[in-house]
Amino acid sequence: MKKVNIAIVGATGAVGQEILKVMTERNFPYKSLKLLASKRSAGQKITYNGEVYEVEETTEKSFDDVDIALFAGGPASRAYGRIAQSKGVIVIDNSSTFRLEPDVPLVVPEVNPEALKDHKGLIASPNCSTIIMAVALNPIYRFSKINRVIVSTYQAVSGAGREGIDELSIQSKQVLDGSPIKPDKFAHQIAFNLIPHIDSWVEENYTKEEMKMVYETHKIFDDKEMAITATTVRVPVFRSHSESVYIETEENIPVEKVKELLSSSKGIVVKDEPQENSYPMPADTSDTDDIYVGRIRKDLYIKNGLNLWIAGDQIRKGAATNTVQIAEELLKNNLV
Amino acid sequence: MKKVNIAIVGATGAVGQEILKVMTERNFPYKSLKLLASKRSAGQKITYNGEVYEVEETTEKSFDDVDIALFAGGPASRAYGRIAQSKGVIVIDNSSTFRLEPDVPLVVPEVNPEALKDHKGLIASPNCSTIIMAVALNPIYRFSKINRVIVSTYQAVSGAGREGIDELSIQSKQVLDGSPIKPDKFAHQIAFNLIPHIDSWVEENYTKEEMKMVYETHKIFDDKEMAITATTVRVPVFRSHSESVYIETEENIPVEKVKELLSSSKGIVVKDEPQENSYPMPADTSDTDDIYVGRIRKDLYIKNGLNLWIAGDQIRKGAATNTVQIAEELLKNNLV
Repeated sequence: MKKVNIAIVGATGAVGQEILKVMTERNFPYKSLKLLASKRSAGQKITYNGEVYEVEETTEKSFDDVDIALFAGGPASRAYGRIAQSKGVIVIDNSSTFRLEPDVPLVVPEVNPEALKDHKGLIASPNCSTIIMAVALNPIYRFSKINRVIVSTYQAVSGAGREGIDELSIQSKQVLDGSPIKPDKFAHQIAFNLIPHIDSWVEENYTKEEMKMVYETHKIFDDKEMAITATTVRVPVFRSHSESVYIETEENIPVEKVKELLSSSKGIVVKDEPQENSYPMPADTSDTDDIYVGRIRKDLYIKNGLNLWIAGDQIRKGAATNTVQIAEELLKNNLV
Repeated sequence: MKKVNIAIVGATGAVGQEILKVMTERNFPYKSLKLLASKRSAGQKITYNGEVYEVEETTEKSFDDVDIALFAGGPASRAYGRIAQSKGVIVIDNSSTFRLEPDVPLVVPEVNPEALKDHKGLIASPNCSTIIMAVALNPIYRFSKINRVIVSTYQAVSGAGREGIDELSIQSKQVLDGSPIKPDKFAHQIAFNLIPHIDSWVEENYTKEEMKMVYETHKIFDDKEMAITATTVRVPVFRSHSESVYIETEENIPVEKVKELLSSSKGIVVKDEPQENSYPMPADTSDTDDIYVGRIRKDLYIKNGLNLWIAGDQIRKGAATNTVQIAEELLKNNLV
């Protein structure tokens, strides 16, 4: 693969750090590496592949001589995404800023790599819950169209970044000690509690997180007919989102066939041995790139209805890994 | 109300203790009180309404001179439920042992009090997740038949009794301290994790807990046509189960009408003010008898589809309170 000048925007955050980890693991080909962050984090030293880099403050000038910029998310995307693109940089963005814009491909490499072909220099990586669901549904969808999706999520605090992780840890200690707690990053206590509210409120009392799962899935599968409805819930888990997903397919697919379709797909591990108490759980699926699927059951009353239980690391495949994979896909297909 | 000789079987467990608390709060009318438990707990002293009672070991003889026996659940139900009934005692049982037997009414007083009329001396209180869902669905069902239910649960460790509560507490400390953990009551780590597996495995890879939600709901509503499918998941929360419930009704019901139906029903609190970040959460719904409903949203794609988020205290309305309410209902209607 071609070696490129790469920049990581938001290199000091949870996703930025994971992007660097994933790049090392996958031996990502680069000529030069630039680590960018907000003014507050500038000056920090980060070691990558044995070399020490100093984090620089992101400015317009930062993008000169950069081939690919991986934006970890956050306000930098809105501030610099289009600017970097206009300078000829290929931007791969993790934030929700550009995902639904018509000139921006929204890509999960296992699902719709073809969307990269006509990219205009700005590519978006979907929402973490959406990626995890899309990877699991794709092999089923390719076999038989999915008409309906009813999803309830169990989302880890890592989705709220490092501060989310710290808040769960600190609050849990406080609750166990009987000390008073003070919610900060989350609207309410998250330790030993559930918050059925992620991101802002949008139409018809749905949250933005819920509607991301609808609109982004429509765009990734290029199928607006899929009737998707979501309830997204924050749970006291550090990493790895889980999802209870109910689907209705066009054709009737036996459970064994579903397992076969999933098992033979890249990036998916079927973990579904009830008698051995084996099923996906966040504690087992953190720090891995695979999406785990289990509890595969036919609806006993509705033809073609199917229940799935899915878990995947929100920071890895849900963010960092998907972003790096998009960059690899571009390089592999000479789209840089 | 008539005063009765009452026995609590399993008085020292989490549900038994809560039954006593609920009886005091509600000023339950009794002539005499007998506290029964296993041999291991016999001899313990429990104070009730200022009087000290010594816990006795449950034997066949224990049920002589008892009018109503409230069984908190566990192995005592199978061992003594039918025996007590045959001695003329009215048994109200919390376990799953008799729930689906044809001669046993399965009762949620807000939903199907009429089922008590022809009782044969043995009455069952439903599974906690089932009660919580049934209370919330009832006002909607009475307005328009519910054809489909797709439910994903978020169940507290209190469902596994006192040992479940202790295990979450101890394990959470261990995880935070970086100490090794050893699952005991649960099949896997529950601290900062999710376990999509409650009770034993039954047909088609569903768990018994999932099928309880199907069959018990059918029996309570006397409607086997309701297409119900459930995914039940244990979450690291101490008390209060939560449920993401999707329903399809016969007729189209506007959200405002749903709220009105729910708000005007006994035992239900509508908490659904998104702009004030107000919705049901286990941290707020523990130690109360009400079932909380919020996040009420129409499916944007499917006619008559509706999402609800429900939370309720598993030990209170999900077990102890419902049992005591059944006893009150019997007394009120001279069915003792």
